[in-house]
Amino acid sequence: MQVVGELRSIREIIGEIKKREMTIGFVPTMGFLHEGHLSLIRRAKEENDFVVVSIFVNPLQFGVGEDFEQYPRDLERDKELAAAAGCDLLFVPAAKDMYQRGYATFVDVDRLTEGLCGASRPGHFRGVTTVVNKLFNLVSPHRAYFGQKDAQQALVLQRMIRDLNMDLELIILPTIRESDGLAMSSRNKYLSSVERKEASVLYRSLRLARELIDRGEKDALIVKKSMEDLIRSTRGAVLDYLEIVDTDELKPLESINGKCLVAVAVKFGATRLIDNIFVEV
Amino acid sequence: MQVVGELRSIREIIGEIKKREMTIGFVPTMGFLHEGHLSLIRRAKEENDFVVVSIFVNPLQFGVGEDFEQYPRDLERDKELAAAAGCDLLFVPAAKDMYQRGYATFVDVDRLTEGLCGASRPGHFRGVTTVVNKLFNLVSPHRAYFGQKDAQQALVLQRMIRDLNMDLELIILPTIRESDGLAMSSRNKYLSSVERKEASVLYRSLRLARELIDRGEKDALIVKKSMEDLIRSTRGAVLDYLEIVDTDELKPLESINGKCLVAVAVKFGATRLIDNIFVEV
Repeated sequence: MQVVGELRSIREIIGEIKKREMTIGFVPTMGFLHEGHLSLIRRAKEENDFVVVSIFVNPLQFGVGEDFEQYPRDLERDKELAAAAGCDLLFVPAAKDMYQRGYATFVDVDRLTEGLCGASRPGHFRGVTTVVNKLFNLVSPHRAYFGQKDAQQALVLQRMIRDLNMDLELIILPTIRESDGLAMSSRNKYLSSVERKEASVLYRSLRLARELIDRGEKDALIVKKSMEDLIRSTRGAVLDYLEIVDTDELKPLESINGKCLVAVAVKFGATRLIDNIFVEV
Repeated sequence: MQVVGELRSIREIIGEIKKREMTIGFVPTMGFLHEGHLSLIRRAKEENDFVVVSIFVNPLQFGVGEDFEQYPRDLERDKELAAAAGCDLLFVPAAKDMYQRGYATFVDVDRLTEGLCGASRPGHFRGVTTVVNKLFNLVSPHRAYFGQKDAQQALVLQRMIRDLNMDLELIILPTIRESDGLAMSSRNKYLSSVERKEASVLYRSLRLARELIDRGEKDALIVKKSMEDLIRSTRGAVLDYLEIVDTDELKPLESINGKCLVAVAVKFGATRLIDNIFVEV
């Protein structure tokens, strides 16, 4: 596995790969890799000739007072994990190269970014769409892999790719979970042992939603109220948002019909966790 | 010369060209081609194996009350002119394909779009950067050609390409002028014969600026005042803006030093014309 940081180097290597008509699979990450990321890398390896993983803790997608500084980093461990999962090229750019003096260009996806995490984290998705657009241009992958854990992110990027006629396929893979159902996330590291136990309430609330909907409940308010009661009964949990939306425009639904996304964000102390499931009725 | 409208067709053809490792030169236009466009196409032909010209009157870059509906169109004439100048592939997409149902993604360049035409035409540059980003993704050219007549547009697009790490070179070619100095523009067609004569005042005011600067004038206010007096002495001319800016951030200069852009916009009735020169001291 090669490791490069320079933008010029990545261009050269990608140019060579393209000349050889090899397909490129791409997994953009913020590092501190866990089983969720590794499942994306493995799938990329299965479906492509050459796999690029990027590690970049993107300052642009963190708001004021968020955890940009503390975000966990462990490049040496990441290198070993990425290589073992099948990564061919690890791209680790520097922020000063990604956002050079005079930087002025931003990519925005309207509407889909207004609710859910977009409402809780103003400017977050502008940061995500802008940096992923840049990474796509640098890596020019045939396929890019994202986890369903960040469902809004994946759907927003899917919209960006379609709207801007970017020539690649976005593939969303299932959320990887701990044994108690907690979605894997680099931010789980922030949790105390008590919080870690309580944090399983996110997935429990989502399973409750699925159960109610499977039993025929169509009223989103009723489903959300049950989820909310469960979350509020958990000592350390502070609800950030809880929503049932359509998967196209991510607009809140009153009546549950067709394919929808049930999404939840909960804070434990300073740690904000998210999770979601798709349901189809 | 091939003519295609379907987005799928352009992708296929470009894919074939790339496989053959041919270089692609691209000239995006709004059609109604004149000698300015043709000079870009000819240069593209000299420098590349394959030349793509697009014709798309982009609704997104026209403001409310602007001339989107009236903008001159003549596809049959454009086909002949483009083919004769060396175009290999004429791409004429439909607005309904470029902006499909649910369209939500926009590219913005900050700061550089605030002044000059950006101040007179709110939203104009968002339309330009968004559509050109899309066209670049569809055509994936090695080089794209723009006229200096739209200098702010070219510098904004140059910034977008750099910031988003788009893998192509932007080439700015000199403004092509009529014998009296009027910059060629599809909008010149709107002018009455009296207005057409008066319109040479744009270039005359720019030449006056160059003369004053060549003679040692460093005070931007004095240069602008002389230009303004000349324009105001022209019967049908209504000054829209007149500015001397740096070529990096397009910020107004008080003192003329280094490379700068002298830019002017003047209305004749409902017709708005622009022109500019670069000066270096």
